[in-house]
Amino acid sequence: MSVATQSYSAVRWDGRRLEVIDQTLLPGTEAWLALEGAQDTADAIRRLAVRGAPLIGVAAAYGLAMEVAAQPGLGALERGWETLRAARPTAVNLAHAVDRVRAAALAAGPTTMAAAARAEAQRIHAEEDTASEAIAVHGAHLLAGARRIATHCNTGALAAGGRGSALAIILALHERGGVHVLAGETRPLLQGARLTVWELARAGVPHALVVDGAMAGLIRRGEVDAVVVGCDRVAANGDTANKVGTYPLALAARAAGIPFVVAGPSSTIDPDLPDGERIEIEERDGDEVRAFGGAATTLPNTEVRNPAFDVTPAALVSALVTERGVARPPDAAAIVALLA
Amino acid sequence: MSVATQSYSAVRWDGRRLEVIDQTLLPGTEAWLALEGAQDTADAIRRLAVRGAPLIGVAAAYGLAMEVAAQPGLGALERGWETLRAARPTAVNLAHAVDRVRAAALAAGPTTMAAAARAEAQRIHAEEDTASEAIAVHGAHLLAGARRIATHCNTGALAAGGRGSALAIILALHERGGVHVLAGETRPLLQGARLTVWELARAGVPHALVVDGAMAGLIRRGEVDAVVVGCDRVAANGDTANKVGTYPLALAARAAGIPFVVAGPSSTIDPDLPDGERIEIEERDGDEVRAFGGAATTLPNTEVRNPAFDVTPAALVSALVTERGVARPPDAAAIVALLA
Repeated sequence: MSVATQSYSAVRWDGRRLEVIDQTLLPGTEAWLALEGAQDTADAIRRLAVRGAPLIGVAAAYGLAMEVAAQPGLGALERGWETLRAARPTAVNLAHAVDRVRAAALAAGPTTMAAAARAEAQRIHAEEDTASEAIAVHGAHLLAGARRIATHCNTGALAAGGRGSALAIILALHERGGVHVLAGETRPLLQGARLTVWELARAGVPHALVVDGAMAGLIRRGEVDAVVVGCDRVAANGDTANKVGTYPLALAARAAGIPFVVAGPSSTIDPDLPDGERIEIEERDGDEVRAFGGAATTLPNTEVRNPAFDVTPAALVSALVTERGVARPPDAAAIVALLA
Repeated sequence: MSVATQSYSAVRWDGRRLEVIDQTLLPGTEAWLALEGAQDTADAIRRLAVRGAPLIGVAAAYGLAMEVAAQPGLGALERGWETLRAARPTAVNLAHAVDRVRAAALAAGPTTMAAAARAEAQRIHAEEDTASEAIAVHGAHLLAGARRIATHCNTGALAAGGRGSALAIILALHERGGVHVLAGETRPLLQGARLTVWELARAGVPHALVVDGAMAGLIRRGEVDAVVVGCDRVAANGDTANKVGTYPLALAARAAGIPFVVAGPSSTIDPDLPDGERIEIEERDGDEVRAFGGAATTLPNTEVRNPAFDVTPAALVSALVTERGVARPPDAAAIVALLA
């Protein structure tokens, strides 16, 4: 793992057991959860203790490997695979990762199944770490002139391998100097306010927090040079599902004539999906919206629509940055070529 | 006052003293504040106990009238006028209203100054009530085919005379049947979650609450027939300042090909302002973003940008509905003609 430039990671693997920071408690409390198999890993993913499309993939891979190590055999492999695959529907990394671990286990004999699954999970983790550094290099080159960066949700070490996806680019730009970040708070679960601010503060990157509704107006007023976000699933044509609230930033960036850049490892691209209309959008529990920190935000039992993601059409994406390079949607061939 | 179709009002005037619902405590607690003069009325406006551009105008008019009644004379009139005019910078109704009360007081003799100021404040209040009903009629005619309405912030009886501005249109459409409202929660102070949901629930209008970032994606998915919002200041060309988070909804409506309708009394139009670039945007305290209901949303002392409003360019406004009729920006002449 190449983690020299980061002082923390959201996942710890000791060769047998996985620990993850419980991200629901950040930034107030830094508590680690020990995970032992498919079910508790799926639970941690579902309740967002571990989150971020690439990191979900890493955790799920280890979850399945731990399950197979505890109960070597086809039954546990298939049950664990199904449990983890169903944990969250939108990110494709999760499905990709557990599919890979399952395939590696199946290809091995019964006696080497556990070791093969573990090795594949470690390979996925290492690939994501490496991808992060390459994304940072490509993205910082692309955005060399940008100083005032807007971002949304959390895309750092808490969301992906290494230093993250979009945030890895921002950190690389910061190392060159002069960067200021506007971070959207990202309701309902405040990943921007809780996690991105925590990561930016640790890295010493100047930043300010804004409510999600305010970012478009600040972009319109000329206060942002570029918008850089992560992605949860990218279709073959470049349509991008990302945290809800991303699409309006893309609209505002286009209206202001500034770049709207999507960053993520190629594991986030789903070449089997022709366009974004077919991406399943997870709808989460309304309680996430009806209360915060124990305080009600509205009348009890108010009906809530709580989609966790939205889809930004490829036509609004200036560039897609992966570890393989930069593609400019809507050139579908270029997107899929990144997977070659 | 024509308030037959509403069961509540956010302001009560008994001929001498003003009471306002403390909107900072809704929907949990319905407490009334008794106001006695310019200073406490300005304080209530500044801390958003009373809010909404037209209702701020009504409260400020009464505040100045009470001040003059307590201390008849030019000194109190001028001091009260300045105090109230400085309470909040963006809404023009406030300045219009206290200018009118001051002019009426100055035109009267010393012995009739208090009565003249009071009469002018009552006239302003009655005009706003009447305007609300006319806005509802014009808007419901314009949007006769719309069933699924998105709105932002609060624009009901808690924000304007009568049944409000945008919400008055929604209530009129509801009376014809079949309306469902998506209400944006409106961070940081949750006027949508706290106030609009409360008003919709009282009126029996089916509705669901969404986080601000989610509305654009739902519009893109074809779940909304029209966006209807209020306004805090409209420039002569139709550029519209409204609660922060309005502009991205206008972008999303345009991209989806659905109407984006702005509603407000003509007291909200500022004919002296050629365009929206010169509207002063109030920046409020960062603590509004850093905490909610006593719970921190982020690290302590995080830098915050907290603009209370954004500006939607006239080109994105399908129609401006006032009590005088409907104008279609960017036809500046039509906007200003509404004032004739």
